[in-house]
Amino acid sequence: MKKSLLALALMGAFSVAQAQSSVTIYGTLDAGVSRRTDTDVTAVGKRDNNKLGFRGVEDLGSGLKALFQLEIRYEPDTGVIESTVRPLFQGQSRVGLQGDFGTIRLGRGLTAFQETSTFYEPWSGMPAVAGYQTDLQVAGYTSDPMSVAGNSLNRFSNAVFYNSPVIGGIFQLNLTVATKEANNNPVIIGRGTAAAPQFPANSMAPVNPYSISATVTQGPFSAYGAYERNAVSTKLWSVGAYFKPIPDLKLMGSYQRQDQDYSVPLNPITKAWLLGLNYNVGPGLIRAGFGRKTPDNVLNSPAIAKTKQFSLGYDYNLSPRTYLYVDGTRKKITPAATFNFYSVGIHHNF
Amino acid sequence: MKKSLLALALMGAFSVAQAQSSVTIYGTLDAGVSRRTDTDVTAVGKRDNNKLGFRGVEDLGSGLKALFQLEIRYEPDTGVIESTVRPLFQGQSRVGLQGDFGTIRLGRGLTAFQETSTFYEPWSGMPAVAGYQTDLQVAGYTSDPMSVAGNSLNRFSNAVFYNSPVIGGIFQLNLTVATKEANNNPVIIGRGTAAAPQFPANSMAPVNPYSISATVTQGPFSAYGAYERNAVSTKLWSVGAYFKPIPDLKLMGSYQRQDQDYSVPLNPITKAWLLGLNYNVGPGLIRAGFGRKTPDNVLNSPAIAKTKQFSLGYDYNLSPRTYLYVDGTRKKITPAATFNFYSVGIHHNF
Amino acid sequence: MKKSLLALALMGAFSVAQAQSSVTIYGTLDAGVSRRTDTDVTAVGKRDNNKLGFRGVEDLGSGLKALFQLEIRYEPDTGVIESTVRPLFQGQSRVGLQGDFGTIRLGRGLTAFQETSTFYEPWSGMPAVAGYQTDLQVAGYTSDPMSVAGNSLNRFSNAVFYNSPVIGGIFQLNLTVATKEANNNPVIIGRGTAAAPQFPANSMAPVNPYSISATVTQGPFSAYGAYERNAVSTKLWSVGAYFKPIPDLKLMGSYQRQDQDYSVPLNPITKAWLLGLNYNVGPGLIRAGFGRKTPDNVLNSPAIAKTKQFSLGYDYNLSPRTYLYVDGTRKKITPAATFNFYSVGIHHNF
Repeated sequence: MKKSLLALALMGAFSVAQAQSSVTIYGTLDAGVSRRTDTDVTAVGKRDNNKLGFRGVEDLGSGLKALFQLEIRYEPDTGVIESTVRPLFQGQSRVGLQGDFGTIRLGRGLTAFQETSTFYEPWSGMPAVAGYQTDLQVAGYTSDPMSVAGNSLNRFSNAVFYNSPVIGGIFQLNLTVATKEANNNPVIIGRGTAAAPQFPANSMAPVNPYSISATVTQGPFSAYGAYERNAVSTKLWSVGAYFKPIPDLKLMGSYQRQDQDYSVPLNPITKAWLLGLNYNVGPGLIRAGFGRKTPDNVLNSPAIAKTKQFSLGYDYNLSPRTYLYVDGTRKKITPAATFNFYSVGIHHNF
Repeated sequence: MKKSLLALALMGAFSVAQAQSSVTIYGTLDAGVSRRTDTDVTAVGKRDNNKLGFRGVEDLGSGLKALFQLEIRYEPDTGVIESTVRPLFQGQSRVGLQGDFGTIRLGRGLTAFQETSTFYEPWSGMPAVAGYQTDLQVAGYTSDPMSVAGNSLNRFSNAVFYNSPVIGGIFQLNLTVATKEANNNPVIIGRGTAAAPQFPANSMAPVNPYSISATVTQGPFSAYGAYERNAVSTKLWSVGAYFKPIPDLKLMGSYQRQDQDYSVPLNPITKAWLLGLNYNVGPGLIRAGFGRKTPDNVLNSPAIAKTKQFSLGYDYNLSPRTYLYVDGTRKKITPAATFNFYSVGIHHNF
Repeated sequence: MKKSLLALALMGAFSVAQAQSSVTIYGTLDAGVSRRTDTDVTAVGKRDNNKLGFRGVEDLGSGLKALFQLEIRYEPDTGVIESTVRPLFQGQSRVGLQGDFGTIRLGRGLTAFQETSTFYEPWSGMPAVAGYQTDLQVAGYTSDPMSVAGNSLNRFSNAVFYNSPVIGGIFQLNLTVATKEANNNPVIIGRGTAAAPQFPANSMAPVNPYSISATVTQGPFSAYGAYERNAVSTKLWSVGAYFKPIPDLKLMGSYQRQDQDYSVPLNPITKAWLLGLNYNVGPGLIRAGFGRKTPDNVLNSPAIAKTKQFSLGYDYNLSPRTYLYVDGTRKKITPAATFNFYSVGIHHNF
């Protein structure tokens, strides 16, 4: 609201005891205790992202809506912003319009590929150690190689986000395009040298990052295809599907392939696949997954890390907003490490 | 609320399903796409400040009110706090009382001059490239020279803010005074030397910064006068007016003069003036402006930058809270640069 | 809320104009003007912590509740996060369950000792210069020696918090246990050397920090005992009581002893005691306190600082949520400094 010269005298008018409807506050806390066998550390930490968000929808008439969403991310065990260097609104900061044409938003948020793929991942896209989203679901790919070190790997800043309507109730197309603006990257040597790096510090991207995903959903079956190119011109494509033989059982799988040839001279290809399931049983949900990530040339170069992961988890619903969880994973990153990871905790939405 | 020993047992009592009236959440998202001709960069960015704020008014009886306001500022395209180094509550953090005597608040916020002048500026004080507030409206002056590099230029921290009532419906006086407390400034050499700077790092101000503005508003006419002295004893005075020949048309102009003599040995004077208009036409608002900033001695020293700016803009209202905008500006900073800047975007209040 | 593929089309359903009951926003602003006689600085600052918080309670049925609380802390005079290096949710970030068994929460917050002791301190635990909580109430002890420099001194991160029910309406037990996780501490030489410090940078704690407090409250009388061991194995115990001869008068006192023997080779003991009162008179509250902090061996080593403090304060209630305050303190830290400190300001809860 723009202030008038009489704003102070009238300020009382803004604070009437009515429900404020222009913004909704929401969030998630997820905290638990975990143990990792190779380091022998018992930790208090998280499984899901912890969020504090603000969003709203305004009806503009004629089927048109304005919408916005701002989301803070934090670590509940230490109270800090994620990685301490990530943006305040690490979850997203977007504003836009929705209508018969679909939805168009500006700002920062998950790319089309990253957002779509979470529906085909057995840990629902959570950054859990037992989950697959941060590693195998993306074949080790990062959407944002040219921001500060420690940044998140699945978003575009300075972007336009388009989501088509769900056409015929079946098909949806999503597209994200970002500018080439510099965003404080550290030096990336790439195919250059230390003296002449391929990507100097805080430089503009050579290409516009973009991301496309398409989904087809019909009854118990859904499939997606996605393609993305990031600011250092790494290409990733990914396909996946889920099938619900009965409504409570969701079987899913995906396959993805990353090509870093533009910036990585040796072994630029990484492939990964995973299979998973979600099974609603009584007041709970069983999660299970198995997958592999295989970089290029791993057969000839045993030093290159090949990853295998098997995970099992259970969410016990105390209410529609709150559940207790337990999960365990066995991760083999040959030849580097093999470990088990167990966690138990509580997840609360508001 | 102070917690009692039984606080935990009673916590349930705090969460009844009633409208909470002690605080109002508000905000603004403004994101768009812009292009600047000299750098050839296409960017996603902002025109207006992006805000997330919390404010409240409490009726204390007998015409007395308590009031507070906290406002976060951020960049929607990257999700970060402004400049990453500014305070969390960059917009303001103030608390105080309002009554027949006027309003008195403590904390941090826009100075009297800075806040008053926004009503006489054709871009409503927005930090838009096409606007005048950040540069010509203040003749290049900064209210806060002694905080960290990258800080905002129009606020006092550690201050007392007084606003008189609107006397006779016509006249209002505003006064801001700040302490001399140090606030992490980098070294400012000023009239000193590198070995003995005039303002060492993190030093106290030699004078109390203060700011006075007075407005006279009668029907279609309003005028202001303002005077400010900052922590390095730079003086600025400014006068301006607006006139509404018809209710939908606001013609405005201002003139300001900055004197940095206390800390700048050469060419300490800067003058600026601007003219502008706001014209409500149908569902939209036309903005236009023209102005010049002329530092001292510019005729004798062609290397000193003299600025000319012409801007045109249009806001198209989709609702009282949401508009689309487009603007363009031509800025000549002779001899340094000449460029055009265009932007189009969406502005949403909640 | 997990997003479905149709989330965008349905987003309108989330923004109905009803009172949102899953989260309550609350906060405190406290700003005033102070003067300290030894430095001769007049400052705008705070007496109480300034807060912006979000909390909620969800009824899960059968007497079980889920609860969460997130609290931002800031400085109202400069708008920054406390010390600029503290976590965003410096106040607390906790989630948990409450039932007949008591309350169990995970995350970061005040330790059992720190939280209990605030009820026996005449400035209600406020970090006021005139208060006793930050120094004499804890005999100079810090709960968190192994986080970044500038961190707060009274919380555990990575912890489990248990509070028993109030048994028989009289007795309550509180327990906090933290993991040994590293949390970015700077080097602590301790009983080691600069080359081989006892606690290297960012190292794990040698012991689990824990904190126990128990309170007994019967009518006008209440007493507590507490014991805490921090991450560098410093031990602190503390006892205190209050008595209300009439309901409006609360007389309190406490005694505490800190032993840093594990990490401090010389004079590891510090003792402190304080007496105080709170007296509700008419629309106000009188606060008074007197106390001493005496490190080990102070008689033999005059250079070791011994602290005496006398304070007087008055809160004048404008409403149940808003008061004006004034206080003064005389603090002697022999041989280092003696000063008086005066402040006056406003405190507003929302």
